[in-house]
Amino acid sequence: MSLPSSSSSKQAGAGVITCKAAVAWAAGEALVIEEVQVSPPQPMEIRIKVVCTSLCRSDITAWLSQAPMFPRIFGHEASGIVESVGQGVTEFEEGDHVLTLFTGECKRCRHCTSGKSNICQVLGLERQGLMHSDHKTRFSIKGKSVYHYCAVSSFSEYTVVHSGCAVKISSSAPLEKICLLSCGVAAGLGAAWKVANVSEGSTVVIFGLGTVGLSVVQGAKLRGASQIIGVDTNPEKNEKAKAFGVTDLLNPNDYNEPIAQVIKRMTDGGADFAFECIGDTGMITTALQSCCDGWGLTVTLGVPKVKPEITAHYGLLLTGRTLTGSLLGGWKPKSDLPSLVNMYLNQEIKIDEYITHNMAFEDINEAFELMREGKCLRCVIHM
Amino acid sequence: MSLPSSSSSKQAGAGVITCKAAVAWAAGEALVIEEVQVSPPQPMEIRIKVVCTSLCRSDITAWLSQAPMFPRIFGHEASGIVESVGQGVTEFEEGDHVLTLFTGECKRCRHCTSGKSNICQVLGLERQGLMHSDHKTRFSIKGKSVYHYCAVSSFSEYTVVHSGCAVKISSSAPLEKICLLSCGVAAGLGAAWKVANVSEGSTVVIFGLGTVGLSVVQGAKLRGASQIIGVDTNPEKNEKAKAFGVTDLLNPNDYNEPIAQVIKRMTDGGADFAFECIGDTGMITTALQSCCDGWGLTVTLGVPKVKPEITAHYGLLLTGRTLTGSLLGGWKPKSDLPSLVNMYLNQEIKIDEYITHNMAFEDINEAFELMREGKCLRCVIHM
Repeated sequence: MSLPSSSSSKQAGAGVITCKAAVAWAAGEALVIEEVQVSPPQPMEIRIKVVCTSLCRSDITAWLSQAPMFPRIFGHEASGIVESVGQGVTEFEEGDHVLTLFTGECKRCRHCTSGKSNICQVLGLERQGLMHSDHKTRFSIKGKSVYHYCAVSSFSEYTVVHSGCAVKISSSAPLEKICLLSCGVAAGLGAAWKVANVSEGSTVVIFGLGTVGLSVVQGAKLRGASQIIGVDTNPEKNEKAKAFGVTDLLNPNDYNEPIAQVIKRMTDGGADFAFECIGDTGMITTALQSCCDGWGLTVTLGVPKVKPEITAHYGLLLTGRTLTGSLLGGWKPKSDLPSLVNMYLNQEIKIDEYITHNMAFEDINEAFELMREGKCLRCVIHM
Repeated sequence: MSLPSSSSSKQAGAGVITCKAAVAWAAGEALVIEEVQVSPPQPMEIRIKVVCTSLCRSDITAWLSQAPMFPRIFGHEASGIVESVGQGVTEFEEGDHVLTLFTGECKRCRHCTSGKSNICQVLGLERQGLMHSDHKTRFSIKGKSVYHYCAVSSFSEYTVVHSGCAVKISSSAPLEKICLLSCGVAAGLGAAWKVANVSEGSTVVIFGLGTVGLSVVQGAKLRGASQIIGVDTNPEKNEKAKAFGVTDLLNPNDYNEPIAQVIKRMTDGGADFAFECIGDTGMITTALQSCCDGWGLTVTLGVPKVKPEITAHYGLLLTGRTLTGSLLGGWKPKSDLPSLVNMYLNQEIKIDEYITHNMAFEDINEAFELMREGKCLRCVIHM
């Protein structure tokens, strides 16, 4: 990495940084560690030195998709340190520890001020591979623009994000752990606590026991759910699942009947809460079927890999079931994530146990393979 | 009608009543007024002299369906007077004024005692055309069994229902009006109040301005919704719709773009609440699309006439929308309907305005035609 051309100032206009980034040149092709140019932060943006980034399933889904946004730098679950700030930024200064936010919080729009939504209308999920403010990129390779991902792009030693797409956190929190709160673990805990409001003594079923699913498990256990049924076809996840609080493990391949029927039998008519954490719209239907009449709530968290349409018989709803979605667990990212970091520091929530691999940046393709093969929970990449 | 064979007793075993009923002999064929035999009430059942019954869209849907349940007596929205009671019935006595309940309340099952469900597990929606208790019928024509509908079958001068499928109401309430609270008007008010909990100042869109839809409108208006958008392709409903509180009328045929886009524009990003009251699963998708990110709630009330599957893009949910269903507006029928009757008596809610036609029993086929052609709201049939 070469230092900014003007090392005396870390304010806006601090100059271009040339550093290493893992660049995807085409859908599904191995990433290539390249020298990229990272622009200085524009007004209301900050440039972050990424310290750790973990790999999340939706990075893989996007990397495999044929959307014409290559070359591109993926990565959206990260921790880092502010390197410089753009004009007008007063919330951050050089040296602040931050989490990146794949969905931002402007604190001013109708949703940010509403108290009941985390879907910021200004800095929400960015799908064009560009910056929110000017619809341009901050990365280039020898003059060729490189697309962003979710306005974060943490698979780079340095990245530029809107100041609404990062949150300052306690400097005593270990960045190599709490990066998981930037997406996966926060998404699962919030789905259980904020979106579903899982109650003591309730029955809960979780489809998919990856990091997000196991974070729902942790959330349900901390709420005192009496039965936590975990559904996954991969028996390698069983040990971790039990450690996090799953009381009953179900592998659909072990049954000759629909798994929803098995769950209804186990729960005297259906679970109180069901969570779809696989990213399979077919499983959302199964989750609805696994819930009870009257008050059964199904929460979908996953980003589907294939069919984006959910299909459900109207009768499932007419008899009192509810279907809802959860983006980042319903947390308002800037307002809420620092308290999750503090809960970790106070040992009220677990994070370390989701980290199955720690890797050097140059081994990032190995992390992609582990995730594709279901051989890991979270791989933390140390930049 | 011939009186019971033993007219001295109206208790169980009071004998068979022969009376007139409108019998459906085949799907979609005109009803035939026949002499039917009505058995005495069995234990925990009551026999009711039907006074008024109104025609609801789901009678039509069931009458048109090819389910092999003919001959059959339809009708599920009715008021009447208890004629006799079966063994063990202490809640009713001869002469009590009642509403019939197409979905019952046993008051003992996990759902009835839960406080959060009206989906009674013992006396819920009956789909086999039989009585809940012994899976037999109480109607026959010259020895041939006649199927029930929703365990009510009010298109008969007398009917037998489980004592959990009727509710005693104030004897001062006009039976020719409050029969509408047995289904349609209660369903709409409850969807707005109990299921959606429409809030003051909110924006609401209602798809389908029949009696159920216009009851949602009434409910939303009484809650102080600031914008109530009514969507219907039938301009004949406009006048009534405005009278009930619709602030903006939309006919999808007047637009060259999807109606959801029009609604999103009118509501600054989408309505707070959307209600599907047509019975068209395609419209449920449109309703979801018409809701706002973050907290938009879609409630489906209709029984679809054609395709029973709902399809929706997962992204609509992930960005914070919720989809739920409403059966009888979420009311626990025995516990809650008497208070709606009292609200009517206190002039706190309107019912009369939904009644566009009053008819003699022998003209019931005319009511079916009016309903099929969208030429009525409620036709009340006086037995």
